[in-house]
Amino acid sequence: MADTPTPAYSLRLRVRMENRPGMLGRLAMAIGEVGANIAALDGFEVKTSHLVQNAVVYCRSESHQEQVLAAVNDIDGIIVLEWSDQVFDLHQGGKIELSSLSELRDNDDLSMAYTPGVARVCMEISKNPARAHDLTIKANTVAIVSDGTAVLGLGDIGPEAAMPVMEGKALLFKHFAGVDAFPICLDTKDPQEIIETVARLAPTFGGINLEDIAAPGAFEIEEALVERLDIPVFHDDQHGTAIVTLAALDNALRIVGKALGEIKIVVSGVGAAGVAVSKILMGAGATHVVGVDSQGAVHTGRENLNSSKQWFAEHTNPEALAGSLTDVMGGADVFIGLSAPNVLTREDVESMNADPIVFAMANPDPEIRPELIADIAAVIATGRSDFANQINNVLAFPGVFRGAFDAGATKITQGMNLSAAHAIASVVGDDLAADHIIPSVFDPRVADRVAAAVSAAARSEGVVRNR
Amino acid sequence: MADTPTPAYSLRLRVRMENRPGMLGRLAMAIGEVGANIAALDGFEVKTSHLVQNAVVYCRSESHQEQVLAAVNDIDGIIVLEWSDQVFDLHQGGKIELSSLSELRDNDDLSMAYTPGVARVCMEISKNPARAHDLTIKANTVAIVSDGTAVLGLGDIGPEAAMPVMEGKALLFKHFAGVDAFPICLDTKDPQEIIETVARLAPTFGGINLEDIAAPGAFEIEEALVERLDIPVFHDDQHGTAIVTLAALDNALRIVGKALGEIKIVVSGVGAAGVAVSKILMGAGATHVVGVDSQGAVHTGRENLNSSKQWFAEHTNPEALAGSLTDVMGGADVFIGLSAPNVLTREDVESMNADPIVFAMANPDPEIRPELIADIAAVIATGRSDFANQINNVLAFPGVFRGAFDAGATKITQGMNLSAAHAIASVVGDDLAADHIIPSVFDPRVADRVAAAVSAAARSEGVVRNR
Repeated sequence: MADTPTPAYSLRLRVRMENRPGMLGRLAMAIGEVGANIAALDGFEVKTSHLVQNAVVYCRSESHQEQVLAAVNDIDGIIVLEWSDQVFDLHQGGKIELSSLSELRDNDDLSMAYTPGVARVCMEISKNPARAHDLTIKANTVAIVSDGTAVLGLGDIGPEAAMPVMEGKALLFKHFAGVDAFPICLDTKDPQEIIETVARLAPTFGGINLEDIAAPGAFEIEEALVERLDIPVFHDDQHGTAIVTLAALDNALRIVGKALGEIKIVVSGVGAAGVAVSKILMGAGATHVVGVDSQGAVHTGRENLNSSKQWFAEHTNPEALAGSLTDVMGGADVFIGLSAPNVLTREDVESMNADPIVFAMANPDPEIRPELIADIAAVIATGRSDFANQINNVLAFPGVFRGAFDAGATKITQGMNLSAAHAIASVVGDDLAADHIIPSVFDPRVADRVAAAVSAAARSEGVVRNR
Repeated sequence: MADTPTPAYSLRLRVRMENRPGMLGRLAMAIGEVGANIAALDGFEVKTSHLVQNAVVYCRSESHQEQVLAAVNDIDGIIVLEWSDQVFDLHQGGKIELSSLSELRDNDDLSMAYTPGVARVCMEISKNPARAHDLTIKANTVAIVSDGTAVLGLGDIGPEAAMPVMEGKALLFKHFAGVDAFPICLDTKDPQEIIETVARLAPTFGGINLEDIAAPGAFEIEEALVERLDIPVFHDDQHGTAIVTLAALDNALRIVGKALGEIKIVVSGVGAAGVAVSKILMGAGATHVVGVDSQGAVHTGRENLNSSKQWFAEHTNPEALAGSLTDVMGGADVFIGLSAPNVLTREDVESMNADPIVFAMANPDPEIRPELIADIAAVIATGRSDFANQINNVLAFPGVFRGAFDAGATKITQGMNLSAAHAIASVVGDDLAADHIIPSVFDPRVADRVAAAVSAAARSEGVVRNR
C-alpha cells in the first residue's frame, strides 16, 4: 500500500446525486474522510431531480479503492453508477500503436510506398546496405529488449508481464526525444539464446536498449552484443542509472564543495546498476569506492565472488575494507544505494564525514526514508517522484539514443556516457540547491542537451558510420 | 524499364522560368516529347523577372528520369533548380513510426503509464497471462517476419533490403484494417533458427505474418510455428494469395456459368503460392487440378520430387498427366499462373475449353500479356494494378488478422481462409463483369467483410481463447 493517495491507484467514478444543496460537499467529505484525494471533478449534468457527476479519486491501494466506493455508496442520496480503475483503463489495448509516415490515398501512393516502387528502394539497399540506416525505420528505431527477469522491483515476472513496462519506456523514448522504440519481450532467459535472438533481429533496428534483464546474464549479453553488432547497444539498468547518478553527484559535490577524486563513496548493491555506477564514477575520477552486497563489503579477500564481483573487488576498495554496511560507512562522504529498503540507518549517516550526501535509490522504498535524516544530510536524493532530487533514468536514455542516431554512432562508449552525465548536470546551472541537484524529468532542455553532447562525443571519438 | 510512365519512377522538379508567355507550355511540351507524364504542377511563384514552378513527372526508369531532366534543362529560359526522386524521398527515415496511445503531460500521467502504476498491470498479467491479450499491444499487433530470401520478384536480397517491403505491408495492415504490424527482418535463413527466433518473440505479438520467405523453408517454418504458438500464424505468400485467387475464381466461374467441381484447372508454378492456391481450390470443391513446374506437369510417376511436390503429386492430377505446360493445357477451363513471365502462349489458350479463364499473376510481368488473348479469353486477371482484375493479397491479410483479433482466434484455419475468400467475392455482387471479378484494393467494404467472416468462422470452429 502506498503511503499517500497516488494516481497509480486512481479511481474514475460516475455518481448520481439527488439535486439538492450540499450534495457535492457530502461527496467530497466522504472521500476525504476515508483518506482519498479528489483529483478531478467533471461531467456535471443536471437532470431535474438529480445530478450526474464524474470524479477522479486518488487512493492508496485496491482495498482503499473499495473503501472509497463503499463510503460514497453509503451517502444518503448518492449512488455510484459506474466506476473503473484508471491505470487499467489506460493500459487497455496497449500503450503504443504503429502509425504511417506515408499516405495511401490511391494506386499512385501504393505504387510508391509499396509495389512496384518499393522494389527500387530494396535494390538500392541490397547494393549498398548502409542505406538501410536512412531508407528504413532503422534510421530512428530502437528495440527495447527484455526477458522479464528483473522488472522494476518485481523480479522475474516473465516476458508477457514485462510488456507494460517496455511499452511505457517506448512512450518515454518518443515523448522526450522523438525516438521510435519497440518493445521486444523474449520467451527465453538463457543469455546465449538472448544474444543469438537479438543478433538475428538487428537488421530491423538502429539500436538495442537492454532492459530489466537480471545480472550477471545482462553483462554477458551486453558485452557480446556490443562486440557483435554495428549499432548502439545500451543496457539502461547499468548505464542509464550510472549517467544520471553521476550527474546528480556532480551537482551535489558542488553544493558541499568536495571533489570526486578526494571522497569516499559507499555503494550499496553490487548488481548491474551498482557496478555500472561505480565504473562511471571511477571513469569520472573517483578513487575510493567501496561496494557492499548482502554479504558485506566486496574486497579481494572474499571468496566465491562471481566474475563481475571479482573484477569489482580488484578495481575498488583500495583499503580492502571488510565487514557490514555499517562497518564501512564511517568517514564516507557519499552513500549510493541501489539495493533494498531500509538497509541504511540514521546512525550510519551520523558516522559519515561532514556534509554527507545520501542517494537512496531503491525502488519503490529507499534504503532510508529521507525524513529520518533530513536534519543531518547535506543532500538527499531518491528514485521517487514524490521526494526532491529524483534520480530517474528517463533523464538519460532518450537523449543518449537521440544523440547516437544524430551522429550515426555505431556504439555507445563510456566517453559518451560521461558527456551525457555532464550535460544533464549542466541543465541545473545556477538554480542549484540541496533540493535541486538534478533537473525535472519534464524539463525539455535535458534530452536536447544530452543528445548534443552524446552526438559530439561520438563524433570526436570517431565511433560513427561514414555517410 | 516500365512500359508506361509510373509513379514508381516519379521525379519532383523545381524549375526557374523566365517570366514571359508560353514558358509553361514549353515545359509541358518538352516533358511530353520525351514520353514522360506530368502528374502535378504546383508552387507557382512570380518573382518579377522569373517564375518558380514545382512539377511532379512520372517517368519509366532512372535513365528516363535523367532524360527528362536533360530535356527540361535544354529549354531556353528554363533551368532546373532542384530535383528529387519521390520514391526515395518518401522512404527517407522509414515509412512507419511508433505513436503513443497514452498522454505524458505530468508526473501523474507518468505514475499511471509508467512507474509505479504500471507495476500493478505487470502483476495482473503475471498472475493471469491471458490478460496480456488485452493489457498490452499484443491485443492488436502482428509481427511481419521475413528473412529476405524471396522478396517480391527480386529473390534473396537479404533482411535489410527486405525492410521497405515489410514497412509497406505494415502501412497496408494499418490503413485497411487498423492492425498494428511491425516488420521483423531476420539475419538468418535457417528454418530452425527462424522458428526458434519467432517462438521467442511471441510474448510481444498477437499474431505472426510470415512474408517473402523462400520455399520449402517457409512451409517448415509455418507448420512448426502453427503447432507451437497459441497465436495466429499466417504465411501470406501462401494463404493470402490462395484466398484472393479463390475469390476471383468464384466470380469468374459465375460469369462463364461453370462449377468449381467440374472444371480442369492448370496451375503453373508449384512453389509456396501454387501449392496453397491448389489446396484452397480443392478445399472449396475443385477435383481436377494439374500443377506444372519448370520440369513439366507434377504427377506421381515423376522422380526426385521434394516432400511438398510429392504430396502435391499424390493429391492432384488424377489422370497423372505428364509433359510440358502446353501438353496439359488442352481442355483446361482455368489457367492459374504463379510462375514466370511469358510461359503461356496464345496457342495454349486456344487449346483450352470454351470460355477460358486466365489468371496470369507472375509479377511484375505476367505469364502472358492480357492484350495477346483479350479476344479469346472469357476472363483475364493479373497481379498488376494497371490491368483489370488485380489479384492482390492486400484484399485478404488485413481483414484476416482483424477478424482473428476480433474473435481472439488462436490460429487461422483453412475454414477461416475459405470464408475470407467468399467474403471478398461477395463484395463484387451485382457489379460482376468480365473486367470486374474482384473488388478494388481501395474498396473499404472488403476488410470489414473479411474480418466479420473470419471472426465468425473462428468462433464457429471454436479456435478462440476463452475471455
